[in-house]
Amino acid sequence: MPYFDAASGAPLHPVARQALLASFDEGWADPARLYREGRRARMLLDAAREAAAEAVGCRPDELIFTSSGTRAVHTGIAGALAGRRRSGRHLIVSAVEHSSVLHSAEAHEADGGSVTQVAVDRGGAVDPAAYGDALRTDTALACLQSANHEVGTEQPVAAVAELCRESGVPLLVDAAQSLAWGPVAGDWSLLTASAHKWGGPSGVGLLAVRKGVRFAAQGPVDERESGRAPGFENIPAIVAAAASLRAVRAEAAEEAVRLRELTDQIRARVPRLVTDAEVVGDPVRRLPGVVTFSCLYVDGEALLHELDREGFSVSSGSSCTSSTLTPSHVLRAMGVLSEGNVRVSLPLGAAEEEVERFLEVLPRAVAAVREKLGAPASETVVREADVLVVDSLGKRCPIPVIELAKVIGDVPVGGLLRVLSDDEAARLDIPAWCEMRGQEYVGEEPADRGAAYLVRRVS
Amino acid sequence: MPYFDAASGAPLHPVARQALLASFDEGWADPARLYREGRRARMLLDAAREAAAEAVGCRPDELIFTSSGTRAVHTGIAGALAGRRRSGRHLIVSAVEHSSVLHSAEAHEADGGSVTQVAVDRGGAVDPAAYGDALRTDTALACLQSANHEVGTEQPVAAVAELCRESGVPLLVDAAQSLAWGPVAGDWSLLTASAHKWGGPSGVGLLAVRKGVRFAAQGPVDERESGRAPGFENIPAIVAAAASLRAVRAEAAEEAVRLRELTDQIRARVPRLVTDAEVVGDPVRRLPGVVTFSCLYVDGEALLHELDREGFSVSSGSSCTSSTLTPSHVLRAMGVLSEGNVRVSLPLGAAEEEVERFLEVLPRAVAAVREKLGAPASETVVREADVLVVDSLGKRCPIPVIELAKVIGDVPVGGLLRVLSDDEAARLDIPAWCEMRGQEYVGEEPADRGAAYLVRRVS
Repeated sequence: MPYFDAASGAPLHPVARQALLASFDEGWADPARLYREGRRARMLLDAAREAAAEAVGCRPDELIFTSSGTRAVHTGIAGALAGRRRSGRHLIVSAVEHSSVLHSAEAHEADGGSVTQVAVDRGGAVDPAAYGDALRTDTALACLQSANHEVGTEQPVAAVAELCRESGVPLLVDAAQSLAWGPVAGDWSLLTASAHKWGGPSGVGLLAVRKGVRFAAQGPVDERESGRAPGFENIPAIVAAAASLRAVRAEAAEEAVRLRELTDQIRARVPRLVTDAEVVGDPVRRLPGVVTFSCLYVDGEALLHELDREGFSVSSGSSCTSSTLTPSHVLRAMGVLSEGNVRVSLPLGAAEEEVERFLEVLPRAVAAVREKLGAPASETVVREADVLVVDSLGKRCPIPVIELAKVIGDVPVGGLLRVLSDDEAARLDIPAWCEMRGQEYVGEEPADRGAAYLVRRVS
Repeated sequence: MPYFDAASGAPLHPVARQALLASFDEGWADPARLYREGRRARMLLDAAREAAAEAVGCRPDELIFTSSGTRAVHTGIAGALAGRRRSGRHLIVSAVEHSSVLHSAEAHEADGGSVTQVAVDRGGAVDPAAYGDALRTDTALACLQSANHEVGTEQPVAAVAELCRESGVPLLVDAAQSLAWGPVAGDWSLLTASAHKWGGPSGVGLLAVRKGVRFAAQGPVDERESGRAPGFENIPAIVAAAASLRAVRAEAAEEAVRLRELTDQIRARVPRLVTDAEVVGDPVRRLPGVVTFSCLYVDGEALLHELDREGFSVSSGSSCTSSTLTPSHVLRAMGVLSEGNVRVSLPLGAAEEEVERFLEVLPRAVAAVREKLGAPASETVVREADVLVVDSLGKRCPIPVIELAKVIGDVPVGGLLRVLSDDEAARLDIPAWCEMRGQEYVGEEPADRGAAYLVRRVS
């Protein structure tokens, strides 16, 4: 049963399992204690810190373990902002950061700080120059992921770090998606990661803070983890995290080549196998195992269910699968189609035959969903002066786009079509459909309910 | 090799190990995902929550899992204080709470809130009436542990909860030390606990918040754990925590009787086996497996090393073992001797023969330490008017008390002895020595360095 959602969390690596079992016996005691069980726990913790620091590319005394990647991000951002409070309260993030970074930014804004979100291009990457333009004299901290978790695009971290360094602003790099593949290049100041992304156990995050970076841990702390992460250290999990990071690094170079070939296959063949599909994310500067595409006229949740029935576990940034009913903020920031979105993230060791079978199953799954959704929209079409109007109010993604596609042929070339929709995804998906179809997206107008999206038939 | 420090952390229970192994395979995926691995993880998480809630005595939707007991306390106190901010910013804690509670109180004070510490008696318990007197109209939250972690004394939680309820103030109970033995009686509002105290894995805390209690989670959160504990849930550890709690509860009644007999033996025999030893903590209302005593003229760290050499792992609240160089805040609040302090906390299944051997080894270990420290103090004694002066400046616990004891015989009955000391522990241990020896502690006077402690020879 192929699991293709490694970017969410990887199954436990065999080395991690082995290390956990061993350290349940040796590493359960309090490392602050003086007796032998405590000393053994302390030795294991110190050795794990050495190993993890080497993989991160920092000194052991610059690295602490937190209880998750999310916690590492929250702690890192809050501590760096507080440590540089006298410099100012401005925070920079990219528009496609992980939610833990964006939630930290929201909390900072709620607390009276200011935040700049740096836009990304259609491939999902920030432009270093644009990022540099966001730096201000009152900027306390800048954040940039090493690679995007939804589309796999690598960010120009080294170039941005250089600009930050010139401005004297620390850069925090969320390396959750890339640390398995290698250390983060460039002169970063803080770095965060999450063990269960590389096959380590849940419950372990990494936070590195370079010596010399001002840092003031927030909230109650204690004497553990340099006063930055309170509470009893989870040593068995930490040992397993460090051991498995070392293990995946040992096979990283070879495995990256192999997974890249497999995702290249998916990138090349999905648009040929599925009509009206768009592969998103940078084609070259990207993580080896991640590929993301969207399919017009498809409900993301229904597609996930079809694929799950066929045995494939993937995730989606479509609005129809999310509890918030809005499309993924990453796809929105990139300005690409969100409907029928699928992220395939291959785990280490993913088999070529499974990828082949996925490519065999996918067109059938998409076709099945499209067939179910293929409801005619003609009865909702009314002429209003010279403009054809499609009333999709109350209908969810991907219905508004399906209705648009069904009536565009009724519009004379050069004529206008107005789609009324109160679904958040339409704002993203109607312009994306126009781009894919070679029609002109004229713009959006306010309406009594939702918004009116104007499309001009070009061909 | 007997490990007698279960109150710090217990070795992994066999049931926890079994549950961990099983859920590494079944529970590693993201429970928010729609595919089968995610659904399985969700089912395991839901079942663990049901089981843990039953053991706590709350509804499953009142219980969240955090990454440690410390984190549960920090989250619970911060959330309850923020939720009741409009009622006021006054917080009540007992003087003998766990450091995680006291650190939260410090953070609250630093943020402009006010804190009342309720004193305890010589047995370590609060008086419910005195606790009730601390309640004010602007009290936002009250905190009381179910039982003390250093001396095992049980607190009158039900009576205090009743008083809090009458005043409309929520009571948070830190049940870290007692949850293995049974649910907390009384009408509490919030409850915290830590799995590794009962043989569950590290990395799991419990926070229960009764419906109707105002609560506003602080800092960045996400959609996980009711928006109260951000970050990927550590499901294998959570499953193991719930399974082992159920397992220890099944044997709790019987094991409590057995451990209580063993600690009764220690309580009764230590004062007979070791001269100048004082057993501290309530003799009746106490945890089954915890017993704490202090030995005059003994350096706590040296005693731990002697016992460790003999194979016994125990902990100490003496100042000489702590990085802060101050005695345990619990012993200080109780006003009992802190030097040569030893806490024995028996794990489930502790063998009677091991306790017997401990009682055999202890007198030798104490004697060995006393012999090493038995330096004469006579050359530091000078007569100053009518008062004998012992200059112990620059000397650490237990030397000042040893020097005091050596010269008291030189003082005529009714005469005064002045001990100069700059060691924090002297403030606690000189009055405690006087009480144990039937001498009169007159009081403390300021001095150029440290303080002068006045003792009158009575007999």
